[in-house]
Amino acid sequence: MSRAHKPRLVMKFGGTSVADLDRIRNAAEKVAAEAARGYDVAVVVSAMSGETNKLVGFVREISTLYDAREYDAVVASGEQVTSGLMALTLQEMGVPARSWQGWQIPLRTTDAHGAARIEDIDTSALEQKFDEGLHAVIAGFQGLAAGGRIATLGRGGSDTSAVAIAAALKAERCDIYTDVEGVYTTDPRIEESARKVDLIAYEEMLELASLGAKVLQTRSVELAMRYKVPLQVLSSFGNAIGSDLPGSMVCDESQLSEEAVESKVVSGVAFNRDEAKITLQRVPDRPGVAAHVFGPLARAGINVDMIVQNISDDGRTDMTFTVGSVDFDRAVAAIEAAEDEIRYESLVADRSVAKVSVVGIGMRSHTGVAQEMFSALAAEGINIQVITTSEIKVSVLIERKYTELAVQALHSAFGLANETTSA
Amino acid sequence: MSRAHKPRLVMKFGGTSVADLDRIRNAAEKVAAEAARGYDVAVVVSAMSGETNKLVGFVREISTLYDAREYDAVVASGEQVTSGLMALTLQEMGVPARSWQGWQIPLRTTDAHGAARIEDIDTSALEQKFDEGLHAVIAGFQGLAAGGRIATLGRGGSDTSAVAIAAALKAERCDIYTDVEGVYTTDPRIEESARKVDLIAYEEMLELASLGAKVLQTRSVELAMRYKVPLQVLSSFGNAIGSDLPGSMVCDESQLSEEAVESKVVSGVAFNRDEAKITLQRVPDRPGVAAHVFGPLARAGINVDMIVQNISDDGRTDMTFTVGSVDFDRAVAAIEAAEDEIRYESLVADRSVAKVSVVGIGMRSHTGVAQEMFSALAAEGINIQVITTSEIKVSVLIERKYTELAVQALHSAFGLANETTSA
Repeated sequence: MSRAHKPRLVMKFGGTSVADLDRIRNAAEKVAAEAARGYDVAVVVSAMSGETNKLVGFVREISTLYDAREYDAVVASGEQVTSGLMALTLQEMGVPARSWQGWQIPLRTTDAHGAARIEDIDTSALEQKFDEGLHAVIAGFQGLAAGGRIATLGRGGSDTSAVAIAAALKAERCDIYTDVEGVYTTDPRIEESARKVDLIAYEEMLELASLGAKVLQTRSVELAMRYKVPLQVLSSFGNAIGSDLPGSMVCDESQLSEEAVESKVVSGVAFNRDEAKITLQRVPDRPGVAAHVFGPLARAGINVDMIVQNISDDGRTDMTFTVGSVDFDRAVAAIEAAEDEIRYESLVADRSVAKVSVVGIGMRSHTGVAQEMFSALAAEGINIQVITTSEIKVSVLIERKYTELAVQALHSAFGLANETTSA
Repeated sequence: MSRAHKPRLVMKFGGTSVADLDRIRNAAEKVAAEAARGYDVAVVVSAMSGETNKLVGFVREISTLYDAREYDAVVASGEQVTSGLMALTLQEMGVPARSWQGWQIPLRTTDAHGAARIEDIDTSALEQKFDEGLHAVIAGFQGLAAGGRIATLGRGGSDTSAVAIAAALKAERCDIYTDVEGVYTTDPRIEESARKVDLIAYEEMLELASLGAKVLQTRSVELAMRYKVPLQVLSSFGNAIGSDLPGSMVCDESQLSEEAVESKVVSGVAFNRDEAKITLQRVPDRPGVAAHVFGPLARAGINVDMIVQNISDDGRTDMTFTVGSVDFDRAVAAIEAAEDEIRYESLVADRSVAKVSVVGIGMRSHTGVAQEMFSALAAEGINIQVITTSEIKVSVLIERKYTELAVQALHSAFGLANETTSA
């Protein structure tokens, strides 16, 4: 549309933010406040907390190998309920609004039921209703697949819905209202001086999300990065609204000030205690050995995270890798079943490990971050078992019991507690 | 379609019949049995019992004057859940099936949201899937209104969905599975010799339904009568299936045997304790007085049931009528507000009345049913306050405390307990 229209805003409320009618009212008040500031608002809602689990429980009780199309029909009902209740609450406050199911928009998806990807969002009906003065309340997590069936986007998919809708509507911002104040320099339950970050780059958020900071779904951050949708994580409790920018803005690197990037090498310290380490001792050191080791794991659908191969000693080497704790038993079974093929002498497992990482786009232009990290850990007497690095991240595997100590030491070493400016 | 197809059957399960996963499994077993007998089955499901009330409660708590379109979006989710769970359960039993929401069929309705009427059912998609071997599980109570919004048919609308779908699919029969064994000659809680009726005419069922026998929604019976859909009421508990005809068949009069109609003048005794009587004494007996009395009630949306006007005495008359107990206070208020217009001398109210009725198509060819009824009541010393009659029904208003006695006396007088043949 070439015609001028009001600025648009997407506001997404997760399950705990719409858990009951009081919470829905609280969320609706924020929508009303943004509408009063002149936005056409698209509200994206999750199911009331607990509902999705209840519905998934029904499906799983009926069948372990369920038809994902029926799973989707059942589970998508949770967001349908919230969308109607939110629209009613807004109307009751005098804010004109209507609910939209995925199929009504339509928001088209692939037919990978249960984990569908958004293919296309036709915004013309939404925009027509915006022009009539009607704000939109959209059931998140769902869309319309081929053959006219309901599809869901997989757990946490409402974040992805919100970002995709913001991109399609060319919204000024996508605000993700949740039960925390924003993105933190580390988990405040472990380090009390942890600070909310005001600004963070998409790439950093992606690393933090994949490292266990569960604030945003990785897919939604990827999507926001691709379409350059400014994303804000903020709390749905209290009275603050997104336009006052009380949360953490996740945005393109170009929007971070030079100063912010320069002054702050590390943006956050992440950790993941759900890791387990497996070492295969004295594996023949010949071409193709890695394929022999990781082939069976890949076929079992197990994600391998960190991988280290020692220097060869008389034609044999030790190979160490980590898997998620939940996959540990299956990983060991898969390796043992392939013992003849891999020809390791022994398998040593360690379930009491944790991964600790420092993340920051400033690392690109600063050397010595890894060294600084290792020194800080050494000063606390923490031994490093495995190291992996990326352009904006350094991760180490340590004994699990040192997790808190390591996080606190790194948070302090990189000066994360001291600053009140943006990361 | 002119091509030959399998016979079709509609099986409707109410809320108590799909209240939990065990009940859904029990219902699915009946569907599997009918499918095994060679039917293409369209299963119509209600929401799990309690769900609709919960959802309606949410809506009412948000707003008293709610947007019925949003009410519909919220409330229709209950049937959506059951349809998916039933389809999954059937699949798990090896019965190919898929769920259908109203908008997917589409089942088009008027846009009287919350109480929509079915306008059109496009059966082509359903039939195509039947041809592919897929039985249908249809969310009852809902359809697609103009503008692509979800509409619901009003409480009890799943019966109506089922009958309309049976008519559109030219189904051999529409089985309404519920929590009673069928239609009874009277309420078994009041008269222990009450029998299940094997066959009953649409007209009789309509009178019984409107007289307080809550087995079937009046609208669904009207629709079945119009399209001559054979309707069976039967229990969803136990192992019986509809094709063995264990319930009560509601069908066209022409399908009742001569013998059955001849031998049985009265098919059932109905009663309604939710009535209240109002008498306006010494109303001017002039043309238009009835309009003066009943106009205010009609404007207040109050249904008046029985009406009697006494013989005039010196230009004045007494007018007596009954309303539903729930409407009593509003009815009195409406009358009193119109006192100047009606010019009655006094208003006498009686909330302790009940209506007892005998129903039977055999009355058309038998005289003396009313007289026999009055005699039976007189023999028990029960005074009759008001009488109304139709072609196949006689109703009397009596003191409420005599309800059970009257029902038992009439059940016996018309020989309803003795027969084991059809009504």
